Amino acid sequence: MSETPRLTGPVEIVGTGLLGTSIALALRRAGVEVLLSDVSREHVRTASGLGAGRARTDDDRPQLVVVAVPPDLLGPVIADALERTKDIGGAAVTDVGSVKTAPLGALVGNPEVSRYVGSHPMAGSERSGPLAASAALFDGRPWAVTPHPDSDATAVHLVEELAQLCGAVAVRLSPAEHDRAVARISHMPHLLAALVAARLADAPTDHLALSGQGVRDVTRVAAGSPTLYGQIVSGNAAAVGELLVEVKADLDKLIAAITRGDRQGLEGLLAQGVAGTLAIPGKHGGPVRPTRSVFVSVPDHPGELARLFADAGESDVNIEDVHIDHDPGRPVGLVELVVDETRAEHLLSSLESRGWVTHR
Amino acid sequence: MSETPRLTGPVEIVGTGLLGTSIALALRRAGVEVLLSDVSREHVRTASGLGAGRARTDDDRPQLVVVAVPPDLLGPVIADALERTKDIGGAAVTDVGSVKTAPLGALVGNPEVSRYVGSHPMAGSERSGPLAASAALFDGRPWAVTPHPDSDATAVHLVEELAQLCGAVAVRLSPAEHDRAVARISHMPHLLAALVAARLADAPTDHLALSGQGVRDVTRVAAGSPTLYGQIVSGNAAAVGELLVEVKADLDKLIAAITRGDRQGLEGLLAQGVAGTLAIPGKHGGPVRPTRSVFVSVPDHPGELARLFADAGESDVNIEDVHIDHDPGRPVGLVELVVDETRAEHLLSSLESRGWVTHR
Repeated sequence: MSETPRLTGPVEIVGTGLLGTSIALALRRAGVEVLLSDVSREHVRTASGLGAGRARTDDDRPQLVVVAVPPDLLGPVIADALERTKDIGGAAVTDVGSVKTAPLGALVGNPEVSRYVGSHPMAGSERSGPLAASAALFDGRPWAVTPHPDSDATAVHLVEELAQLCGAVAVRLSPAEHDRAVARISHMPHLLAALVAARLADAPTDHLALSGQGVRDVTRVAAGSPTLYGQIVSGNAAAVGELLVEVKADLDKLIAAITRGDRQGLEGLLAQGVAGTLAIPGKHGGPVRPTRSVFVSVPDHPGELARLFADAGESDVNIEDVHIDHDPGRPVGLVELVVDETRAEHLLSSLESRGWVTHR
Repeated sequence: MSETPRLTGPVEIVGTGLLGTSIALALRRAGVEVLLSDVSREHVRTASGLGAGRARTDDDRPQLVVVAVPPDLLGPVIADALERTKDIGGAAVTDVGSVKTAPLGALVGNPEVSRYVGSHPMAGSERSGPLAASAALFDGRPWAVTPHPDSDATAVHLVEELAQLCGAVAVRLSPAEHDRAVARISHMPHLLAALVAARLADAPTDHLALSGQGVRDVTRVAAGSPTLYGQIVSGNAAAVGELLVEVKADLDKLIAAITRGDRQGLEGLLAQGVAGTLAIPGKHGGPVRPTRSVFVSVPDHPGELARLFADAGESDVNIEDVHIDHDPGRPVGLVELVVDETRAEHLLSSLESRGWVTHR
């Protein structure tokens, strides 16, 4: 391998579920040849049918192998990939599992370990399987790349290039740092969301009828597969357990404050929460810009939505996000246009002058 | 008052913050006269300037008074509204506070209590103040109406009509039932979101850089005002405290399962969470229909978004929701169109045939 190799392919994807197939589609989009393998021949056929590449044969010589199998299987499947590529030019091997110290631990003493560099794209979906895959899954998302002390520089470089070809932003961390980070920004939040959702499971229907966007947002991630998240959390037990003990200490304080009527204690805990929401960086790493929502009634006729966006485009205001709230029982839907706070008034008057019913 | 009175107005709004001003705007949209009052004359001027109605004078004779003040002030302000309207035709009085037994308790022994009926629109925003108000805030949302045993039927009817005029769906519950319901679907989730967010407040920046949509969703509500939520939670301490003790028992089990490596126990807790997410009704009360996301690259030129919606409209597929992911540093944005699962393939091929770059 040269000093600064390009990821020209072929890239082998082992495991054609949501992540594996999405990576394959993103690589195909970038013109890279992709070889697919999976214990399910059905999944390989499906992924291949979606344009994700072709089934791997024994004669193939991948430049990089991406292991995208369930967490419990990562160790042996990575070891297998290192083993079967050692005599055919020594491909770099990465995995895209959610935990990074556990698979590395399974490779201790493996003489080929220098060709392995862990990675973890910060993207996913509540859905799974190749049919849920998308080449766009990683666009603009962080992708952790986690070299270990013996990682080959070439392998690290190829894995960072993989992240970039998939449209993601490579973020380099040690495996241990990575695991502490995801315990905090992913595994612990997932578990707490599950505890909230668990309290809804047997709630009376007329209580649940009052559910608003808040509880839907808090619990959304808890819809993920218990088997998958059981594996992820078990693979990161130490870091997750430590954080849960911290949460428990806060929960004890919270219950005490509420029971005692200690308003100051309660507000203090809520204020820490506000500080936490402000610590999360903006979607693209920058600061969070203040936005304002502009609500517009849109008649339920084909073409009305297009007309709204045409008129919004004329007003020269950049639309940051859109939400549509369309009740099938009503002739008019409500469209929420999220725009820069300083541009909202201009957009409102511009749309009103074109005859749109806005809501202030 | 007649047996089935219509809410013809005028309606007095006491407190022109986010909720009060939004109700005022919705009533004005329905052609109802609105009278505004607030301890802040500045807020009344702002709300009035937004078209929410005019300042109340001593000669006004409201048909209904809506008290939209902070939770701690509800009792005295409701009592004041009952007192000052008793000699001028006996207006019905409601409030829109998040807790319903506490303000009722403050009215025990009040001879005018039959004219009071509590209510609670299930809508809000992380933002506050009249400038964040919207006439559309309640469209399609549940609005709890909570009569007590002595409530006058006319007053109950007028409050239900208020909910309907604001575009909401009235849901009748007793005050105690309401409080148990919101403890479960709003207050407890808010507090747990705050505990998750609190763990982020002093996290290393490169850990937070890995944040994805999941942690953003889980913690979004925790950005709400500690003072406001402190008042809300304190006003519902018994019901909230009971649920938090249940959550704590689950958290203890969770920590034990993770520490012991008890995978079955861990998956059992996660499975309860999945069941809870399935118990939440769909946005408009119906069952949740399976949707699929179609991703399209959209060049950052004015008019491109309008062209996309025009082409999507031609394909005769109903768009349920839209998300725009536009990184200012990139020439192309990514638009996610959420459609009925069975229509996704048709939309994809229809857009592709019109030259759009889609991502599968």
